[in-house]
Amino acid sequence: MGERIVIVGGVAAGPKAACRAKRLMPDAEITIVDQDSLISYGGCGIPYFVSGDVSDEKELRSTSFHMVRDERFFREAKGVNVRTLTRAVSIDRKEKALHVEHVETGEKDTLTYDKLVLATGSRPNILPVPGNDLKNVFTISSMHPAMEIKELLAQGKVGKAVIIGGGAIGIEMAEALADLWGVKTTIIEFMPQVLPRIVDKTIAGMVENHLRENGVDVFTGEGATSFKDDGNGNVCAVITPKREVEADLVIMAAGVRPRGELAAEAGLQVSPMGAIIVNQRMQTSDPSIYAAGDCVETYNLVSGKKAFAPLGSVANKQGRVVGDNLAGLPTVFEGVVGSFIMKVFDCCVGATGLSLEVAWSEGFDAVGAMAVQSDRAHFFPTQALMFNHLVVDRATRRVLGLQGFGSMGDGLLARINAAAGLLSRRADVSDFGTLELAYAPPFSTAVDVLNAAANIADNLVAGRLQDVQPEEFDAWMSGTAERPDWAALDLRHPKEAEPFVKTFGDKWVAMVYDEVRANYKKLPKDKTWIIICNAGTRSYEIQLFLKSVGIEDTLVLAGGLNVIRRLGVQWWPEG
Amino acid sequence: MGERIVIVGGVAAGPKAACRAKRLMPDAEITIVDQDSLISYGGCGIPYFVSGDVSDEKELRSTSFHMVRDERFFREAKGVNVRTLTRAVSIDRKEKALHVEHVETGEKDTLTYDKLVLATGSRPNILPVPGNDLKNVFTISSMHPAMEIKELLAQGKVGKAVIIGGGAIGIEMAEALADLWGVKTTIIEFMPQVLPRIVDKTIAGMVENHLRENGVDVFTGEGATSFKDDGNGNVCAVITPKREVEADLVIMAAGVRPRGELAAEAGLQVSPMGAIIVNQRMQTSDPSIYAAGDCVETYNLVSGKKAFAPLGSVANKQGRVVGDNLAGLPTVFEGVVGSFIMKVFDCCVGATGLSLEVAWSEGFDAVGAMAVQSDRAHFFPTQALMFNHLVVDRATRRVLGLQGFGSMGDGLLARINAAAGLLSRRADVSDFGTLELAYAPPFSTAVDVLNAAANIADNLVAGRLQDVQPEEFDAWMSGTAERPDWAALDLRHPKEAEPFVKTFGDKWVAMVYDEVRANYKKLPKDKTWIIICNAGTRSYEIQLFLKSVGIEDTLVLAGGLNVIRRLGVQWWPEG
Repeated sequence: MGERIVIVGGVAAGPKAACRAKRLMPDAEITIVDQDSLISYGGCGIPYFVSGDVSDEKELRSTSFHMVRDERFFREAKGVNVRTLTRAVSIDRKEKALHVEHVETGEKDTLTYDKLVLATGSRPNILPVPGNDLKNVFTISSMHPAMEIKELLAQGKVGKAVIIGGGAIGIEMAEALADLWGVKTTIIEFMPQVLPRIVDKTIAGMVENHLRENGVDVFTGEGATSFKDDGNGNVCAVITPKREVEADLVIMAAGVRPRGELAAEAGLQVSPMGAIIVNQRMQTSDPSIYAAGDCVETYNLVSGKKAFAPLGSVANKQGRVVGDNLAGLPTVFEGVVGSFIMKVFDCCVGATGLSLEVAWSEGFDAVGAMAVQSDRAHFFPTQALMFNHLVVDRATRRVLGLQGFGSMGDGLLARINAAAGLLSRRADVSDFGTLELAYAPPFSTAVDVLNAAANIADNLVAGRLQDVQPEEFDAWMSGTAERPDWAALDLRHPKEAEPFVKTFGDKWVAMVYDEVRANYKKLPKDKTWIIICNAGTRSYEIQLFLKSVGIEDTLVLAGGLNVIRRLGVQWWPEG
Repeated sequence: MGERIVIVGGVAAGPKAACRAKRLMPDAEITIVDQDSLISYGGCGIPYFVSGDVSDEKELRSTSFHMVRDERFFREAKGVNVRTLTRAVSIDRKEKALHVEHVETGEKDTLTYDKLVLATGSRPNILPVPGNDLKNVFTISSMHPAMEIKELLAQGKVGKAVIIGGGAIGIEMAEALADLWGVKTTIIEFMPQVLPRIVDKTIAGMVENHLRENGVDVFTGEGATSFKDDGNGNVCAVITPKREVEADLVIMAAGVRPRGELAAEAGLQVSPMGAIIVNQRMQTSDPSIYAAGDCVETYNLVSGKKAFAPLGSVANKQGRVVGDNLAGLPTVFEGVVGSFIMKVFDCCVGATGLSLEVAWSEGFDAVGAMAVQSDRAHFFPTQALMFNHLVVDRATRRVLGLQGFGSMGDGLLARINAAAGLLSRRADVSDFGTLELAYAPPFSTAVDVLNAAANIADNLVAGRLQDVQPEEFDAWMSGTAERPDWAALDLRHPKEAEPFVKTFGDKWVAMVYDEVRANYKKLPKDKTWIIICNAGTRSYEIQLFLKSVGIEDTLVLAGGLNVIRRLGVQWWPEG
């Protein structure tokens, strides 16, 4: 008989560690315990199960070759024992024993181990507000609430829904409810933007606008203060300081926290937030005990700081490292960069590394460069605009992060993935500028949007480009910020500029890009010119030219009007 | 008056260098000369112009904001002078003067320079065979032949076409002719596979099969020996040692070579193949003369050897570096990794770094790992198979290259781009295994196909996985290679295995994956088992298990039957 390995947690990291270890050590006796009846499911697929894209929950826990990953599968195909409905109660580290009890029968048992693996996952945050225990208030903690929600939807019992939290899961659930089930859905996010700390406000603004275009109400900067009872114990509304939103269904998607209690109670080191502390070989402070997945603390390879990264893709990678180390292979998991991508109706949003706001909070003197460009050759029929926002450390020119927004498809993924690998290697603006992304007209442009973002960042950091952010420009145009000396210099085609000139009068001057060299002397001298085009590239060129002829008080609208249009501003002229 | 800069060549690198330099040095007096009448066009778009995807050639030389990049545009918008139809005749380096003459009038002129930039591009190879000067035999050297070909197509004069060369341009042109114009098209490639030295034979085989599925004949391993005259000076057929293929139109797409003559005649250093030698700042052996684009020699960052990389994306990056250096910014272009992607009807093929064959020829002891997996979550409705072939140096575990094949879309681009940046940084199999590719079910899988390829490579290099290549397996199944001791062990669902067992008898044994642990003793002992599933992952697991019970003479079919099916083998059973 080989090593006895006991694994607590049967969703992602646990089974991955079990199967890898078993392949490497066919003699090992490996047992997974999980308190749930369903294991080894793709939790990230839950929104697509709720939406109906995935019809049967079994698909979420099936292999690609259509075998359901249940106890029998693990035993017969993998040679791994699984005990479901079995809760890990405590660890006796001295005796190397895990005490468990059956969730339904209460029957107790003790499993001795040579090596223990904790893959206890995370639990969703529950809002500490009145009514959080009402019926039809859910968190997405496992397959079961997802199945309950889908049942409610299928029965036609949900006309209106409120999602608490505008993070990835909240937005995915909102789309699931609104798009296929036609539920009137509202997202309420406490922070001033959706996807806080993941993307910056401009990209978040595009997401919010696109959600609204698809009928989802989005209220940011306000929190739920209570959930209202319909008198029968069912939720009927969500109350915030500003409004009451009717709801037959409420989903709390306000983040998760690690399940580190079992480890902490056994005296293992945990972080202040309760995540299990591990070394790069995923070993806890007890060398016989490993941990992986949502329950551990990891390390951010960009910021150099401790991080919490509850993602299925990370859990799987860590699980494999645990499997290796259980079998004596000294592989390591160095940390995360925080890669992220998400479908939002017809569009997608993604990020990797640090957002500008996070970079600032981590002490970097960072700037953001927005590139707006066709995702493929502009003459190729299926081209669409893509927005890439590159975050760069001014002092070192190191790239700290990338965010993007674009049409649904894998085009944005191609840029996020390209950046992900380089971020941990301290690549700088020049590395990104010359990064050899694959090029052919049906896929990309000769100067890819990611290369372009790096080139813009290069110009920004070198001080050649002076820009104004879309939000600041919008504030001026909306009249919420007074800028009496500002005027817009619109370089676009006269037909594009015309409705703006008509609407805004003296505030908006049109002079076509290729006529500025001939006509710049006609410009009034007493203005701060906000130079405007569709994407910002023509504006940059004209900024440099104007500086060369002594007109130095200019700012380029970062990303041009294409960004402004995607933010859904109120003042956009008709026609 | 600022610096006088003269640039020879107005397609990609030249205009990019000119415009970047002008932005950085508004005082500079910059002149581009080009012997053609059309400049600054997207040459990579020519197949899409011929196909009709792009209706007007002007689109290929327009900005994204729809201004045609002609002499007027460069003068008025960019402040750069352009002289078209002007051939550079010779360089007087001592006098710092370029002698030019007008192509039509023969008028001579001399342009003095402070800095000269050579962006003279490349020219297509012309097959040295009889009939290469017949009418309707073309190379794609510029916009003009493309316009002539499209005119012939539009007039209905092309029923049959032959493309000489199965490289990227040849395949793109074949699709352009066959797909939209319905021309019966044949590709003739001298090497034993299409895309030679770009992808390995398995991926190339998928491309060839997909071309054939779309009605394009592909003959590899044979060269054209002559072009046949119809008696009126028009081509009517291509003759090879094996056949005569009728053709109203022949396109020679047999590679390009650098136009380095102007440089060589001026005494600048050129490579044996005639490419201009430059340093990382794109400076030739004369510090006053820069060069960029298809005419220069560059450096392969993976192999560490000199390289020739005639690509529009590379030309643009080099052009920007020239612009920087003209203006005194000491930026560098370090070299290429060779990123490549291409649409082939409904599929796409891509690569970055070295193919296995090239790696061997460069002296690496390399192995290839094939991962076959859904490009997105297997439960997501739009999922399709993706093939990733990772090339790894056995001794150092360094990743040398990646190739892939998949459905049309940007999914493959996302993996190629992810690899591209890491390749130049000597990333190894572990770096690729833990590479944090963005994950959400509509885009990818928790263990991405690229991570999976790295994991397979890890198992291969460590000697845990012993595999057999699809071509060798196919040779056995086709009867062209005798392997009397081999038998297939098919782990798939009985319904999948059934037609194979029926067709191949004793040669093909079915035992479902999850029953092997219970039933392995039933396997005959005297066989070399070729373990088979759809993708290779179940096979690998069973190989390890069988080894643990003493059955060591096994080989995993690399990539499984999904690869074999895509190769279009003759022996695939009906039903």
